[in-house]
Amino acid sequence: MNIMGIVLAAGQGKRMKSKLYKVLHEVCGKPMVGHVVSALEQLNTKRAVVVVGHGAEAVKAYLGDRVEYAMQEQQLGTGHAVLQAKDLLADEDGLTVVLYGDTPLVKSESLKDMIRAHQEKGAAATVMTAIFDNPFGLGRIIRDENGRVSRIVEQKDCNAEEREIREINSGMYCFTNRKLFEALNKVTNNNSQGEYYLTDVIGILVSQNDIVEAYCTEDAAETLGVNDRVALSEAEHIMRERINREHMLGGVTLIDPASTYIGADVQIGADTIVLPGTVLKGATVIGEDCVIGPNTEIEDSTIGSGVQVKQSVLSQAKVGDQTSIGPFAYLRPGANLGNGVKIGDFVEIKNATLADEVKVSHLSYIGDAVIGKNVNFGCGAITVNYDGFNKQLTEVEEDAFIGSNVNLIAPVKIGKGAYVVAGSTITHNVPANDLAIARERQVNKEGYAEKLRSKFYAKKQQSKTKQ
Amino acid sequence: MNIMGIVLAAGQGKRMKSKLYKVLHEVCGKPMVGHVVSALEQLNTKRAVVVVGHGAEAVKAYLGDRVEYAMQEQQLGTGHAVLQAKDLLADEDGLTVVLYGDTPLVKSESLKDMIRAHQEKGAAATVMTAIFDNPFGLGRIIRDENGRVSRIVEQKDCNAEEREIREINSGMYCFTNRKLFEALNKVTNNNSQGEYYLTDVIGILVSQNDIVEAYCTEDAAETLGVNDRVALSEAEHIMRERINREHMLGGVTLIDPASTYIGADVQIGADTIVLPGTVLKGATVIGEDCVIGPNTEIEDSTIGSGVQVKQSVLSQAKVGDQTSIGPFAYLRPGANLGNGVKIGDFVEIKNATLADEVKVSHLSYIGDAVIGKNVNFGCGAITVNYDGFNKQLTEVEEDAFIGSNVNLIAPVKIGKGAYVVAGSTITHNVPANDLAIARERQVNKEGYAEKLRSKFYAKKQQSKTKQ
Amino acid sequence: MNIMGIVLAAGQGKRMKSKLYKVLHEVCGKPMVGHVVSALEQLNTKRAVVVVGHGAEAVKAYLGDRVEYAMQEQQLGTGHAVLQAKDLLADEDGLTVVLYGDTPLVKSESLKDMIRAHQEKGAAATVMTAIFDNPFGLGRIIRDENGRVSRIVEQKDCNAEEREIREINSGMYCFTNRKLFEALNKVTNNNSQGEYYLTDVIGILVSQNDIVEAYCTEDAAETLGVNDRVALSEAEHIMRERINREHMLGGVTLIDPASTYIGADVQIGADTIVLPGTVLKGATVIGEDCVIGPNTEIEDSTIGSGVQVKQSVLSQAKVGDQTSIGPFAYLRPGANLGNGVKIGDFVEIKNATLADEVKVSHLSYIGDAVIGKNVNFGCGAITVNYDGFNKQLTEVEEDAFIGSNVNLIAPVKIGKGAYVVAGSTITHNVPANDLAIARERQVNKEGYAEKLRSKFYAKKQQSKTKQ
Repeated sequence: MNIMGIVLAAGQGKRMKSKLYKVLHEVCGKPMVGHVVSALEQLNTKRAVVVVGHGAEAVKAYLGDRVEYAMQEQQLGTGHAVLQAKDLLADEDGLTVVLYGDTPLVKSESLKDMIRAHQEKGAAATVMTAIFDNPFGLGRIIRDENGRVSRIVEQKDCNAEEREIREINSGMYCFTNRKLFEALNKVTNNNSQGEYYLTDVIGILVSQNDIVEAYCTEDAAETLGVNDRVALSEAEHIMRERINREHMLGGVTLIDPASTYIGADVQIGADTIVLPGTVLKGATVIGEDCVIGPNTEIEDSTIGSGVQVKQSVLSQAKVGDQTSIGPFAYLRPGANLGNGVKIGDFVEIKNATLADEVKVSHLSYIGDAVIGKNVNFGCGAITVNYDGFNKQLTEVEEDAFIGSNVNLIAPVKIGKGAYVVAGSTITHNVPANDLAIARERQVNKEGYAEKLRSKFYAKKQQSKTKQ
Repeated sequence: MNIMGIVLAAGQGKRMKSKLYKVLHEVCGKPMVGHVVSALEQLNTKRAVVVVGHGAEAVKAYLGDRVEYAMQEQQLGTGHAVLQAKDLLADEDGLTVVLYGDTPLVKSESLKDMIRAHQEKGAAATVMTAIFDNPFGLGRIIRDENGRVSRIVEQKDCNAEEREIREINSGMYCFTNRKLFEALNKVTNNNSQGEYYLTDVIGILVSQNDIVEAYCTEDAAETLGVNDRVALSEAEHIMRERINREHMLGGVTLIDPASTYIGADVQIGADTIVLPGTVLKGATVIGEDCVIGPNTEIEDSTIGSGVQVKQSVLSQAKVGDQTSIGPFAYLRPGANLGNGVKIGDFVEIKNATLADEVKVSHLSYIGDAVIGKNVNFGCGAITVNYDGFNKQLTEVEEDAFIGSNVNLIAPVKIGKGAYVVAGSTITHNVPANDLAIARERQVNKEGYAEKLRSKFYAKKQQSKTKQ
Repeated sequence: MNIMGIVLAAGQGKRMKSKLYKVLHEVCGKPMVGHVVSALEQLNTKRAVVVVGHGAEAVKAYLGDRVEYAMQEQQLGTGHAVLQAKDLLADEDGLTVVLYGDTPLVKSESLKDMIRAHQEKGAAATVMTAIFDNPFGLGRIIRDENGRVSRIVEQKDCNAEEREIREINSGMYCFTNRKLFEALNKVTNNNSQGEYYLTDVIGILVSQNDIVEAYCTEDAAETLGVNDRVALSEAEHIMRERINREHMLGGVTLIDPASTYIGADVQIGADTIVLPGTVLKGATVIGEDCVIGPNTEIEDSTIGSGVQVKQSVLSQAKVGDQTSIGPFAYLRPGANLGNGVKIGDFVEIKNATLADEVKVSHLSYIGDAVIGKNVNFGCGAITVNYDGFNKQLTEVEEDAFIGSNVNLIAPVKIGKGAYVVAGSTITHNVPANDLAIARERQVNKEGYAEKLRSKFYAKKQQSKTKQ
């Protein structure tokens, strides 16, 4: 059986008050229309058509050739929107699912269930419905004695009895494709808004004695349409709950799922604990038995097992097993850490490979570097990789010891087992096992501190006098 | 029509368990009584009287001359409290709104609606009411056949039928002023608590055949009185939701409004995204298209458009357009950044002006300085602005390059295009285009690293032996 | 009256998907079975037996000799589990409370109430029950005309009327001890699962005309059994609410209790404000009038009064009164700060005593040190405490001034009032009041910056050409 999909994504979204086109606003790091198209793709659709209008180019730029496009120049209603796909789809046999670009929470599992029900019941159309505690404003589903849909009544047309009905029309449908386009041809804009409503197709099919069924989803959130940023935050909240629930059921401990922000594509191993205030994004993969957070941000990074990351920010980094990071560390793109590495507080690593057991404990920057096994960087030791024009390489071979507040001016190479004493600025290579020193001897000037203080104090008094 | 306001703010607030007087506890950064007085002020009140008692001086110090004050020496009930305003207000014509200093969620819109209803219906008193799912403990509103208030019944006096009533007395009222004070004179303390109750005024007015109406607010939260810090946190939560909702409807994306803390007076431009764990306070203004957070704190600062601020703290700072800050940056009072500036990780800026395109990428401190356009500070470069007594100025002219771990000892001036090499401590001015150097040459001592290691190792063994 | 306790803790917990045994998963920083045993201990139990099976050794290692143990080799049902305690308890007179290792929210107050009710009513067994809005899947309590329990009906055996009953069996009981073991001997495994059910004891007692009462807890959360990590996060959430509520009622302001994470044993003084995103753990004690957070983590530390800690991490630290820490500071074990100390941004303190009024404002590391009163560390000043083998002591006496980017190479002592100028590496002691200097003089090379730029620019062009 052929399955087709149509996604209506032409509306402007004025209530978003945004320069960004509505369906491109993100939910859990992915544009809304991307979530909807992903749901369709899991149905193995033969063809998927996105009806675009406002912001058409931006939507096409985002979705690319994952789908076909139909252009709706003027927004004349949902029926009119679907009709734009006629040239592409009207001659197809099979079923067509109609979705919206601003309902990011619809699940492929539900769509599959709806399609199955549609087929089993020989329906011409199946309406996705949901039960709402407060259905005010939504179209109510009127079922006949067989449980089939006989009518959909809009709020303003409801009588007292109908107002009590809590099953509502989500606006999403499964149609037998040819029935859809035949009926669409009969839809008129003879109504107060002068629009062509897709809902009218249901009335036409019923009047032809075609079977119209309702598929009632258990998760009413699937039908949430996002028209402003309050609804956007609600969609984000619900999707966050879904994602977090899956991780928890998979063996990840989330201390506070309500304050844990995990992107749709992030993978996390069992027995890892994620602490509150943590944001995991993009193509991040985290191993088992890690402790991540609190207040940590990891994007597009690969983290081994047994890793601790506390109050830190990682972007496009790679981290080996049993490594410890933070608090207050910043791993930037190209940071590539081995196993058993220690990156402490106020340390930045960028475009640098650190072999196993390297220690960079505090207040250091290592950029554009290759660091051998078991090297120790003292507090404040840094690589000077930039001269204002060029970024250059620092190499430190295994077992070398770089003293505190040392500057390694690239390009430079520190040999195996070499020792650079604290406070030195190193401009030339250091052979293996050599000790390098570049600092002035200490002189103590007797009693001069008192003189200096008197001088500074006098200056202060003078400055006060001036004011 | 004259509008007067009375705010009862004399209670002690024992359940707050605080050295701070109850109505001065803050909700979303503003003392509770401040919220109530702000709501009154939006009614353009002719006179506003705050009845003070416990902590009177502290309340007066906070509110200043925004209001008049009446002193309630002894707390003998709400009726007694209002009566303290008699000398100030009894001779006025017009309406008087009675509020409480511990109900910070009351809205001026509701007060305006209540006043309008009061006038239209020719009432002597209008009670603000609300519908509670669980009204236990609250006074119930008994309405007559015309919908007017015939009685208010306290919980302990309710019969079975009355207990089922879910419309409750908020304790807030609109009175025709002269009616209020006439009736107040008739209130007695002939009850078990020996107190003078404001509620009794309602009974007196009804018994005189004056019209008493009820104005039922849709938002029951308006009536929330804060008596302990659990209620304080609830008030904070509800006000936070209100503030965040307004920002979202205005075009700001909040990824998780439940974990985003925005002060009442903060302004944010459209299409700015605020990430979780972010606190925006005081007179902060943020432009359009920014990304702020996560875990960022901004107070009393002005941020341009297109700015990124990640995991950072800003206080009394000014930030130009397209500037990038953090992660882990600290901008202190007087930080004044131009456009296209980059402030990276572990950087502090204090009382310093940085022109456009300045880069301070990591581990730096710039204090008491004027930095020209396009200057680059290397990693660890700092201004030494303090000698123990005086704070002095560092000037760096445009296009200068300050090497890594350089100390600029103020007062000092680095000329245009000058170059200070890494590891130098600069004590004298550097003319334009000069290169300044102040470091010792490097010496490599052949094979000495091994000797040093042996020495340190021996020391370690020795120290073990001692223990 | 003797009180005994039995805790069933032998199940595997497959749905946790964990290498860690289920009852050892933590809720608010304490293993679940630890919470349950703590609740028992508050009953002053004469004997407490934990029935272990899977992971027996790990549970014993955690609980130690707080309890006795019975081994359940095979898991043949709850009745079978309790029966394993027979040898230990069957001969005791008194009452036995039966609990589960995975219901961490049970309160000792409720257990005391249940025991009191059991005794007053002369019951052989008392079932702890709760009212659930949605009781689906849970055993329903059928009471007789006297309010006693006549039956417990499992979901699958409920008729239409019984399905409507919302009072459910928590599985927790108080038994008259001898009655329990007598009845247990009669329980069979003649059911579809082939298990011995503890619930059957109730039927046996009723059939013997023993009195079976129900004690209905007001807080249904007490009965929450944790079988997967979704439930674990719910238990954590509820316990967090309980803990935070106690602190708020005690006079602590929590701006957002939902995002504030306080361990069960943490103490906080009145009028302290805890900002969102803050984690307080272990044996932490915080004084009065502090402001802690946001986004701060404090573990096993003692904080005085009037202290500010912003965006920082503290572990095993001690902090005096009126001290200010952060943002972005890291206090590690052995940090011991006096009163009026200032620890600023990007500062790490480890195993160091800082006397009153010491200032370490930015970008410093102080480790293995004793610092006297009123010492000032300039920006970037550090102690060099590690030579690759040994950690050594730095001493700085009162009123000394350590300039910016100074290295103090331990072991070293800076005398009272001494002055170390910026950029110096100090290898020898500095006597009191001496000025120490160890840096090269500055040389300005006229016009050489331009030459350097040309050289670097040429290099850049060359490197481009190569590519």
